[in-house]
Amino acid sequence: MTLWSSLIEFAKATKKIGEDDPRRIVHSMKVGLALTLVSLLYYFRPLYDGFGQAGMWAILTVVVVFEFTVGGTLSKSFNRSCATMVAGALGIGAEYLANLCGERGEPVIVAILVFVLATMATFTRFYPSVKRKCDYGVLIFILTFTLVAVSGFRAEILRLAHQRLSTIIIGGITCMIISIFVYPVWAGQDLHDLVATNIEKLALYLESFAGEGFHSSVENNDNSRLQGYKSVLNSKATEEALANFAWWEPGHGSFRFNHPWKQYLKIGAHVSECACHVKALDGYAASSKIKPASETCKNFQKPCTTMSSESARALKDLASAIKTLKSPSSDIQIHIQSSKSAANEFESILKNMSLPQPDGQELMQLLVVASILIDITKCVEQISDSIHE
Amino acid sequence: MTLWSSLIEFAKATKKIGEDDPRRIVHSMKVGLALTLVSLLYYFRPLYDGFGQAGMWAILTVVVVFEFTVGGTLSKSFNRSCATMVAGALGIGAEYLANLCGERGEPVIVAILVFVLATMATFTRFYPSVKRKCDYGVLIFILTFTLVAVSGFRAEILRLAHQRLSTIIIGGITCMIISIFVYPVWAGQDLHDLVATNIEKLALYLESFAGEGFHSSVENNDNSRLQGYKSVLNSKATEEALANFAWWEPGHGSFRFNHPWKQYLKIGAHVSECACHVKALDGYAASSKIKPASETCKNFQKPCTTMSSESARALKDLASAIKTLKSPSSDIQIHIQSSKSAANEFESILKNMSLPQPDGQELMQLLVVASILIDITKCVEQISDSIHE
Repeated sequence: MTLWSSLIEFAKATKKIGEDDPRRIVHSMKVGLALTLVSLLYYFRPLYDGFGQAGMWAILTVVVVFEFTVGGTLSKSFNRSCATMVAGALGIGAEYLANLCGERGEPVIVAILVFVLATMATFTRFYPSVKRKCDYGVLIFILTFTLVAVSGFRAEILRLAHQRLSTIIIGGITCMIISIFVYPVWAGQDLHDLVATNIEKLALYLESFAGEGFHSSVENNDNSRLQGYKSVLNSKATEEALANFAWWEPGHGSFRFNHPWKQYLKIGAHVSECACHVKALDGYAASSKIKPASETCKNFQKPCTTMSSESARALKDLASAIKTLKSPSSDIQIHIQSSKSAANEFESILKNMSLPQPDGQELMQLLVVASILIDITKCVEQISDSIHE
Repeated sequence: MTLWSSLIEFAKATKKIGEDDPRRIVHSMKVGLALTLVSLLYYFRPLYDGFGQAGMWAILTVVVVFEFTVGGTLSKSFNRSCATMVAGALGIGAEYLANLCGERGEPVIVAILVFVLATMATFTRFYPSVKRKCDYGVLIFILTFTLVAVSGFRAEILRLAHQRLSTIIIGGITCMIISIFVYPVWAGQDLHDLVATNIEKLALYLESFAGEGFHSSVENNDNSRLQGYKSVLNSKATEEALANFAWWEPGHGSFRFNHPWKQYLKIGAHVSECACHVKALDGYAASSKIKPASETCKNFQKPCTTMSSESARALKDLASAIKTLKSPSSDIQIHIQSSKSAANEFESILKNMSLPQPDGQELMQLLVVASILIDITKCVEQISDSIHE
């Protein structure tokens, strides 16, 4: 019974993962296809006699190199081929050097060279720029150098290096072709969509906040949709990885090669700052002691609602401007302006406030909410500026 | 000249990376050592005739498996060995099945099996739990299964599987021994220190905030030390990775096997929430319009300063309680209580405020700062609770 129910659990989880992003199923099949093609190559040895045992390097390459996005696959293939070439050349050099030292000196020299190069290369992996662009390449460099330097002792070294390189290139090219031409998943497109969706999520929350007037939407059925801003807070790592991969991709769709992907990271940083403010706002809305009927609240409600709804509209327009890749319309400036003037209005109400106020705590919460909304307005302006760039 | 200056740049960057964490240099040398040992094994073939060409799997294992922390190395070694065993067995089964179908059916069956298993295994990598604990194992599973199933056609399959497994185990054991016994870097210890340091960073900021009375420390020389809270905001990913690795580690130092590492993630979540509030506080402090001499400010200064300094003291005590692995002292509760009573005091001042206030903007900022401080007080209590557990 427990086995049966956990099987059902598992099936449900599987269905959910597939439904969340159907490209995952396609990706899995693409990997299966690439692997089958390459292993058939290895299987029918007579046709490709040159590769022999080294054919397994093609399989290894496919397994390790095939990533979910085109950019990931290209970056890993490129890293792998380059590192293999450089390391192969150095390995042959090391073997040649070791050979000069006679049969007894050879293992000593090889051991020293392997130690020194592996130590140095491992250390370079701690450089942030290396880690970002070619961590995998360094790994392959160490591997290939060691293998070539060590095996030179008994195998015909040039043949080995040539074999490895050609099979790796066959594996890499198979991956690249399948990943580019069979239902490609572009990291750039994903990054683009992610940023636009994140902005939309914030707009959605602010819109509902304006509608409900200082009160949380906990009772609302749409809760999960409104809580979308929480995922915005944690999307920084994904954005960075996608931007790294997108850098490798050729032009596709409406993007040309060398699209300014870094700009998306800038926008993303502003968006996540805005999400931080929205989180604070949501925290206050959930524990709100503000009574919508009270005098204080009525005074301040209008500018707050305006700030919230105008910011939401500006964000929506910005998201659609990103989506259509068009220059943002002038409406956005209008929304930002009216949000700003609402902020000024708020401050003037505060100055001329008819005091004393009956409820200190309520006043405080109102002021905090308003000040967060003012911060959000500023953030929206920054997002708009960074999109204009 | 530019070459020379960029060389100097590079040397400086290298020095900084080494100084930031000298264990990086040691780690690089450990990798070099492991690799040299294993390649010597491969080099002196006569001694270990059983391994032959498969010796290169040992080199491959060392390069791929050796991670910075003990937990990382153990997790990868374990993943690799298990996956190789399971996949090897399945591969032999597949090959046996294919053999039954005669010479012409064999490649078809092998191709189908490879496609199906690779597709399914790739899909499992999207499950969050698989991704966390054994992403690498699945990769190796696909690789080994394909290699064994395909090469069965011409090599003596059992010998191949046995060779691969034994060389992988040799490589894995070399990594494990060196990583555990030569200047070990424990992921658990790192996680422990990270959480304690993060709490200390927050305490440091709050302490200086209390000292400077509502004004930013931008002019302060110690600026970089106070800005430490920013790194706290982004340490979630590191904490999760370390907790995953720590799970694999045997008892070490003052930690036994199965130390409640997950609890650290809980504490970390509260700490990062607290850092979010501190960030907001710092934002207000930087653009502060609060005049320390004004009447309004004088009224509110005392409770705010108390909240800030008492929270800082509580955090400091908590950090040192974590560091010494002792149960938190009762002082912490006292600090939290006095911080809470300062919050109450603030609210009563607000209620009995002599109105009207001369400067609306100043009042607003004061209230916002105080409300953030109240949030921080709550957060500190949560942190303390989660440490007690």
